[in-house]
Amino acid sequence: MNTSSTSPAERPSVGFIGLGIMGRSMAGHILAAGHRLNVFNRSRDKADELLARGARWCATPGEVAANSDVIITMVGYPSDVEQIYLGADGIVARAERALLIDMTTSSPELAVRVAEAARARGCRALDAPVSGGDIGARDAKLSIMVGGEQAAFDQALPILKLMGTNVVLQGGPGAGQHTKMCNQIVIASTIMGVSEGLAYARAAGLEPSTVLQSIGGGAAASFQLAVMGGKMIAGDYAPGFYIEHFIKDLGIALAEAQRMRLELPGLALAHRLFDGLAQQGHGRLGTQTLIKHYGG
Amino acid sequence: MNTSSTSPAERPSVGFIGLGIMGRSMAGHILAAGHRLNVFNRSRDKADELLARGARWCATPGEVAANSDVIITMVGYPSDVEQIYLGADGIVARAERALLIDMTTSSPELAVRVAEAARARGCRALDAPVSGGDIGARDAKLSIMVGGEQAAFDQALPILKLMGTNVVLQGGPGAGQHTKMCNQIVIASTIMGVSEGLAYARAAGLEPSTVLQSIGGGAAASFQLAVMGGKMIAGDYAPGFYIEHFIKDLGIALAEAQRMRLELPGLALAHRLFDGLAQQGHGRLGTQTLIKHYGG
Repeated sequence: MNTSSTSPAERPSVGFIGLGIMGRSMAGHILAAGHRLNVFNRSRDKADELLARGARWCATPGEVAANSDVIITMVGYPSDVEQIYLGADGIVARAERALLIDMTTSSPELAVRVAEAARARGCRALDAPVSGGDIGARDAKLSIMVGGEQAAFDQALPILKLMGTNVVLQGGPGAGQHTKMCNQIVIASTIMGVSEGLAYARAAGLEPSTVLQSIGGGAAASFQLAVMGGKMIAGDYAPGFYIEHFIKDLGIALAEAQRMRLELPGLALAHRLFDGLAQQGHGRLGTQTLIKHYGG
Repeated sequence: MNTSSTSPAERPSVGFIGLGIMGRSMAGHILAAGHRLNVFNRSRDKADELLARGARWCATPGEVAANSDVIITMVGYPSDVEQIYLGADGIVARAERALLIDMTTSSPELAVRVAEAARARGCRALDAPVSGGDIGARDAKLSIMVGGEQAAFDQALPILKLMGTNVVLQGGPGAGQHTKMCNQIVIASTIMGVSEGLAYARAAGLEPSTVLQSIGGGAAASFQLAVMGGKMIAGDYAPGFYIEHFIKDLGIALAEAQRMRLELPGLALAHRLFDGLAQQGHGRLGTQTLIKHYGG
C-alpha cells in the first residue's frame, strides 16, 4: 500500500464520491498519483474533467464501493452520509474488505455508527474531516483530522497525504469529527469577536483598516481577523465558506455538546446570529457576512 | 524634540505617573534614552529602582506636571485617570504648555474631556493605550494606539517609539481608547471560542494538545488559541492579564457601545462570564482562567 514504491496496477483503486469544489481537487490529486479512480456525484457534469483525465464513472455509490479498495466520501450533510453509507445499495452494503474514509464534516455519533456497520461487514472505516477550504484542497495542504483504528489510519495515510500536509489521528471512531467540531467552535466565537470589534470601530468613527494596523499583530491577532476582517472591511461577501454550511456544522456541535451536557453559550449565540442571516437570504454568502448583523 | 540629535539637557523632561509592572518598564526605557525623569506612584517603593538609576521623586501628580515637558500616565481605572488629570492639584491644573499622554486603558469619553481641559490650559493631550502586556513593555515592543491632534502626535512620537514598535495615530481625542476597545472586544469573544473549543475537546475525550496540532494552524488559528489555549491545557492560570482588569475594559467597551446604540451580544456574554469568575474569587488570575467556567 506504499504508493511510492508500487506500480500503478498494485496501487489500491480509489473510489471518490462527492465532487464539489473541494472533492474535485482532492480526487484529482489521487488520480495524479497514479491510482485507478472510480467516481460518483449527484450531478454527473462535475465529473467531466476527472473522466477526461481517466477516471471511471460509476452509476451509484454502491457501484463505486464494489469496485474500489479505498472509498472516500466528501458530501454535504450528515443525512447524505447516512444514506450513502448505510442506505440500500450503499457503501457498507456493497464494499468488500475495503477501507472507507468519510471526509465530510458530519456527526461524530454517525461516524461511530458507520464504523460499527463497516466492521460488521469486514471493512475498516475512518472519519477524516478537513480544514483548509477550497485553497487547501487545491494545493493539497489540508489539515485532516482522523478518527478510527490505528491500523486503518496507517493504511490510509499514504492516500491522505496526497491531499493534506497535516494528517493527525485524534482517537477512535468519531474523534476526527469531534476535532473538526472543536475547530468550528473556536472559529464561531472568533469571527463574532472580529465582527463586533470592526462594527465598534465603524460606530466610533475609526477607520477599520487603520485599526487593523494597531490590533492585527498582538493578542487580538487571528486568521479570522486578518482574512475575514479584511473581507468585511472591503465589503467582499463572496463565499470562502458558505454560511449555510457553517450553520450545519455549528448545529452538529451544539447537538453533541447538549448530548455531553456541556453548555457552550458562545457557540449557541454565534449559531443564532448566523441562522438569522440565513433567514434573511444570506445562506450562500461567506461567513464574513456576519458583520451585516451589526449593520456593517 | 528629536531625542537622537539633541544633548540630554535639551531633551524634554518627562514625568511618569503609575509605576506598575508595565509602567516601570516603560519609564525605564525613557530614562535609558537620556531624558530627565520625574516619577510618582501611590506606593513609593515601586519607584526604588528608577530612583537608583537617576529618576527624581515627586510627592504628587501635580508636582510631576509642574516639572515636566511631557507627562505620561499609566494607572489603573478611569476613576484614577479622572482624579489625576482633573482633580485639585492634578496634572491639568499644574502643567504648563506641556504634552500630556495617558497610556492607561480608559474611557474614550474621559479622554475627550481631558483633552478639552488640557487645551483650555494651553496644553496638548493624547490618549495612547497599549497592547503587548508585561513582555511588550519590557522589550519596548508595545502596540500604541493614539488619539489626538496630529501636531501632538508628531511631538510625542520620539518618546512613544522608546516604548513601542507599532505607534499609530487613529484619530482625534478618544480614538486611541476606542481602538483599544476594538482590541479587547475582538479578544473577548476569541478567548471564549478557545475556551469552548477546548472544553468540548475534553468532554469528547480528545487529547487537547493533539487537537491543537490539527486546528492550530488553520482558520481557527489565533494568538489566544496558541498562547492562552496552551496555558489552559497546562492548567497554568498565572496572570499575563488579570481578569479584573479585563472586566474593567469590557465594561468600558459595553458602556461606549450602549452610548452608540450598538448591540454587541458576544461582548456582553464574555463580560458576564468573566464577571462570574471574578465573583468566584478569580479576579487576580489570568484571562485564560475562562476555561474554568466550562469545568476545565
